[in-house]
Amino acid sequence: MKKSTKKASWKFRLHEIIYEADTPKGKLFDVILLVAIIASIILVMLESVENFDAKYHNALYVGEWIITILFSFEYILRIISIKKPFKYIFSFYGIIDFLSTIPIYISFIFAGSQGLVALRALRLLRVFRILKLARYIGASNKLLLALKASRAKIAVFLFFVLIVCIILGTVMYMIEGAENGFTNIPKSIYWAIVTLTTVGFGDIAPQTPLGQLIASVIMILGYSIIAIPTGIVSSEMTKTANEHHTNTQSCPNCLKDNHKENATFCYNCGSILNE
Amino acid sequence: MKKSTKKASWKFRLHEIIYEADTPKGKLFDVILLVAIIASIILVMLESVENFDAKYHNALYVGEWIITILFSFEYILRIISIKKPFKYIFSFYGIIDFLSTIPIYISFIFAGSQGLVALRALRLLRVFRILKLARYIGASNKLLLALKASRAKIAVFLFFVLIVCIILGTVMYMIEGAENGFTNIPKSIYWAIVTLTTVGFGDIAPQTPLGQLIASVIMILGYSIIAIPTGIVSSEMTKTANEHHTNTQSCPNCLKDNHKENATFCYNCGSILNE
Amino acid sequence: MKKSTKKASWKFRLHEIIYEADTPKGKLFDVILLVAIIASIILVMLESVENFDAKYHNALYVGEWIITILFSFEYILRIISIKKPFKYIFSFYGIIDFLSTIPIYISFIFAGSQGLVALRALRLLRVFRILKLARYIGASNKLLLALKASRAKIAVFLFFVLIVCIILGTVMYMIEGAENGFTNIPKSIYWAIVTLTTVGFGDIAPQTPLGQLIASVIMILGYSIIAIPTGIVSSEMTKTANEHHTNTQSCPNCLKDNHKENATFCYNCGSILNE
Amino acid sequence: MKKSTKKASWKFRLHEIIYEADTPKGKLFDVILLVAIIASIILVMLESVENFDAKYHNALYVGEWIITILFSFEYILRIISIKKPFKYIFSFYGIIDFLSTIPIYISFIFAGSQGLVALRALRLLRVFRILKLARYIGASNKLLLALKASRAKIAVFLFFVLIVCIILGTVMYMIEGAENGFTNIPKSIYWAIVTLTTVGFGDIAPQTPLGQLIASVIMILGYSIIAIPTGIVSSEMTKTANEHHTNTQSCPNCLKDNHKENATFCYNCGSILNE
Repeated sequence: MKKSTKKASWKFRLHEIIYEADTPKGKLFDVILLVAIIASIILVMLESVENFDAKYHNALYVGEWIITILFSFEYILRIISIKKPFKYIFSFYGIIDFLSTIPIYISFIFAGSQGLVALRALRLLRVFRILKLARYIGASNKLLLALKASRAKIAVFLFFVLIVCIILGTVMYMIEGAENGFTNIPKSIYWAIVTLTTVGFGDIAPQTPLGQLIASVIMILGYSIIAIPTGIVSSEMTKTANEHHTNTQSCPNCLKDNHKENATFCYNCGSILNE
Repeated sequence: MKKSTKKASWKFRLHEIIYEADTPKGKLFDVILLVAIIASIILVMLESVENFDAKYHNALYVGEWIITILFSFEYILRIISIKKPFKYIFSFYGIIDFLSTIPIYISFIFAGSQGLVALRALRLLRVFRILKLARYIGASNKLLLALKASRAKIAVFLFFVLIVCIILGTVMYMIEGAENGFTNIPKSIYWAIVTLTTVGFGDIAPQTPLGQLIASVIMILGYSIIAIPTGIVSSEMTKTANEHHTNTQSCPNCLKDNHKENATFCYNCGSILNE
Repeated sequence: MKKSTKKASWKFRLHEIIYEADTPKGKLFDVILLVAIIASIILVMLESVENFDAKYHNALYVGEWIITILFSFEYILRIISIKKPFKYIFSFYGIIDFLSTIPIYISFIFAGSQGLVALRALRLLRVFRILKLARYIGASNKLLLALKASRAKIAVFLFFVLIVCIILGTVMYMIEGAENGFTNIPKSIYWAIVTLTTVGFGDIAPQTPLGQLIASVIMILGYSIIAIPTGIVSSEMTKTANEHHTNTQSCPNCLKDNHKENATFCYNCGSILNE
Repeated sequence: MKKSTKKASWKFRLHEIIYEADTPKGKLFDVILLVAIIASIILVMLESVENFDAKYHNALYVGEWIITILFSFEYILRIISIKKPFKYIFSFYGIIDFLSTIPIYISFIFAGSQGLVALRALRLLRVFRILKLARYIGASNKLLLALKASRAKIAVFLFFVLIVCIILGTVMYMIEGAENGFTNIPKSIYWAIVTLTTVGFGDIAPQTPLGQLIASVIMILGYSIIAIPTGIVSSEMTKTANEHHTNTQSCPNCLKDNHKENATFCYNCGSILNE
């Protein structure tokens, strides 16, 4: 990288710390942020546990403010250190970072009416801070590529599952009826989804022999067609993995790449490849 | 297509709108139909929700008639605009289109006896209108081909699953008996299917240690043999995917096909391939 | 086959009807047997449904005797028509055929004490008649070969699953204890299997936060490791499918087979292959 | 092996019996150990069954001491017969072997206070003796290699599952609330994991229509994304399996390896390969 030899402005140095991770300070910044995100999620969780909140309400409140200020600071630094702030502000991460700080400020302003459902929901939105973690996964991994490539097929599959659930849910509503828990069609469809996906809560279960027969068909169907998305992704990944076997060198004569890993001659022009 | 230069009868133009989707009017027709189908399914669902039906009964009734008239109109247009109407009428889509319109007319005729179970079931049949959506998926996709190719293997698998469930269901009936919910063999087989497919409603659950031991065996069996349909479809799709990578041109010299997608020379005789 | 030109003894003709399926009489025999097996299984099921048995007890009894006599007749014919009767009698199918006939005779002999549990169990054993169906699947299909090839790996996997369930079941017994339904270790292990295999009956469910945390770990583990048997079978089947791509011809020079489907030269000696 | 021709010290002979399995005595040692481990696990299980423990307490107690002494003896022999005892003591198996013997001694010393929870937990730790079985599986099998190779991808997948469960758990807590069993966020996240992994205990189930809608989304998501770990492992195993088909010899002329298993000529330079 050898960036240390360049004379860099403080903005540039800040950018390096915040947006990159290959300097000690940059790594430290990332670790602090990571800890803050996880701590923040744990705070939201604990706040919802009644007994815990009753005991440690103040500690949770203080912790929340510390994290909010930290995130606000991070947000401002990110805007300052970047060349095109608006591009960041309206990017996915920009919006996530903004939403990570704002709920607690709003709930502070409307503190008198804190009991309102809307404000409570707003506070719970803090859980979306976890999306800040997405930065650390990176968008370029092969898994996502394989999924993207099989997007269309998976959509067709989901569409098929939905049609099956709507039809079979309605049929079960006809057969079992409200007296066995299938009170209306949306609920019956919900049950069909619960059954087809092999979740099977058991809050609603067929009681009539005919209903149990159709339920059996749904279950075996669900058990078999799970093979379809699996097959799609497996075949896509096998394909991606096979493409792996080509090396990265390019032919010295015609510049084509994607040669087989142990190829001696270019598959395109027949020139000898450098080892 | 350049069909606009031809002098086309109104029947031909109608056919183009209804059966094709590459003109603006044809696309509009498709979108209207799509919206009508989805609206229709939602209506059937809402009608079954007691509270909602009590409040908005009239609105639902009117909506239902609008959609029925629309579908009737579509059905008549499809018959008029096609050359061989009977081929359409007795095709899969012809029957679906017919069944999409008829229930409400019948229930209108027998309006006095609307409370009858048969009529109620008839009205629910409207849910099969969703099959009209199948037109938009198309029958030629690779997913279906892979499934068709592995049909025989999947049938053997399902047959095996059924035999296992019948035997283990009967064994569980012997062990657990009516006092633990396994009141008869069909119900025990139903339970075995619920367990083997890993659905596990929990409405019936083994109580005796021996029953729980056999249940464990069924569960682990079910957990392991799901690998079989998955393996079948995965291997079939990998095969289909591999065949993808070859293009459709044939060598001008030796007439061999199945060349790699970016090959320049014939893999068989070395002649240059046409681009 | 041209067997009709041979002068065959009645034993030979009988053997042809019973053990083969390529003559009209042989096919008829198979169809009758198939119907009898399925009817027999349905009889066993219906007998266990109390209401049905109360109404149609005599009809079921007569039906049972008809099928038993049919199977007895089949058993005797099979012994008579084969050259080495003892080999058949002690084969898998021989034992199944014998067990398909014997229960009802025994229960007839001890008719006075029909209420005995042992006799009732014996009668239920008739369900194993379904294994007679195995004859119609055939043992030579590729599915079984792929499973046999991955037998060792699947055994290691099941062994691993069992160890995980024993350890985690014991840990859950420690944490949750008898008051939350985990009354003893075998039951806790049963619960761990129910959870790991994603069946989830819900008859026992963790109540303490720590128990729910460990349950979450078990569930995510179970959700992930199902990939292992699936991966084993998929890879085995892909391998089997790939071997398919070789053709059946053998080299005219060196007699090696397993050539690629579109190969022109022998991969072993370089001779030209006949088309 | 021809080790019998060497003059071996008793330490060497002991080492051969304990650490190897290719002599009759070594095999006998392994079988005895295997039986002892399984017997020990069964003892721990039976001890937890109240009725059984009440009846056979003394027999279980004696059995436990016999096994403990056996394992102690094994532990001492292992230390004596190895050249670097400390390497063994602090290895994975060394620690497991130590922990297999110690609990019962401690509980004997503190016998007066046997009712203590800590001691009871300690006694239950004996279940980890099952890890002694790991010796018999061996660490070098291909299954583990395939899993290790796909470790990073599976970690990303689990991370993604966790994020989804945290967000959807919180959303369900907002929608359903404490009155429908979603008493706090950790519990809601537990429910989301139960649902996403298709376990579905049913101890908590959504009651509101909106909650059931989101539950449906979670279920279909869980049903679809199980394809991801499966795809990862399948593709990894297919790769490993493919690499199988090449043998380990290298060409005597150009030193290339990775030849097909039955190849006679080098695929690279055409030289004849040594058998």
